[in-house]
Amino acid sequence: MSSTPASDSPCPVVRSLAVFGDAWSMLILRDANLGLTRFEQFRRSLGIAPTLLTRRLAALTDEGLLERRRYSERPPRDEYLPTEAGRDVLPVLFLIGAWGRRHRGGGPLTRFVDAQTGTEIVPLAIDATTGAPIGTRDIHVAAAR
Amino acid sequence: MSSTPASDSPCPVVRSLAVFGDAWSMLILRDANLGLTRFEQFRRSLGIAPTLLTRRLAALTDEGLLERRRYSERPPRDEYLPTEAGRDVLPVLFLIGAWGRRHRGGGPLTRFVDAQTGTEIVPLAIDATTGAPIGTRDIHVAAAR
Repeated sequence: MSSTPASDSPCPVVRSLAVFGDAWSMLILRDANLGLTRFEQFRRSLGIAPTLLTRRLAALTDEGLLERRRYSERPPRDEYLPTEAGRDVLPVLFLIGAWGRRHRGGGPLTRFVDAQTGTEIVPLAIDATTGAPIGTRDIHVAAAR
Repeated sequence: MSSTPASDSPCPVVRSLAVFGDAWSMLILRDANLGLTRFEQFRRSLGIAPTLLTRRLAALTDEGLLERRRYSERPPRDEYLPTEAGRDVLPVLFLIGAWGRRHRGGGPLTRFVDAQTGTEIVPLAIDATTGAPIGTRDIHVAAAR
């Protein structure tokens, strides 16, 4: 983006997007949640330019979504592990994927299964209070507080 | 982004991000889902440069997430309404907001309430098959098909 939405906005969406609101950051978080940790793994997986990857990894580390850990002293090499905040992006990614499956579903698509039941994951966003899927009932905006 | 992830990837996340994977597009979709329709409304709400807004509105219209409708002939003026695909981004936005509320929650935050019950929306991503919140059980990647 040429300019970034303000991270002190009262809108929680804006605050999140100020942290991981670009496609590369989201895909790095996808890979980190799938178990990738090293620069070369991310680079190969994403086909991203090294300078861009370096910048994104540093930003996600500064924001506390990845934790940097040195795994080799000579040569000095770091790996990146998702923090709790980084793992919390996983539900977002599954919902983003659900949109793609529904609206851009042609051709082979990666599937995700529950390790315990072997059934395919069907991501659904609900309101935990009412249990209603989000988008099926009217929602009002209330004052910030 | 300087280069865009391929939209023919087998990863459904990549396919979605190729369509709305930047913060401005997501915020335009947020506003469209809140009822904003006109260029000036989006521009004022987002503080986005007019050229960027024009480009994003055209892209989201081309991708079928917004529908352009002429509301004035003299002067010619269009408005933009979310399509079904555009409304389907709402669950994604609520999950993104849930992350911001949890991890960047300081200060006043906009709240969203169920119009029927008046209770605050607590967005949660579940696997509709098992009912388990996503991230609480192991997930395996299966072959694309």
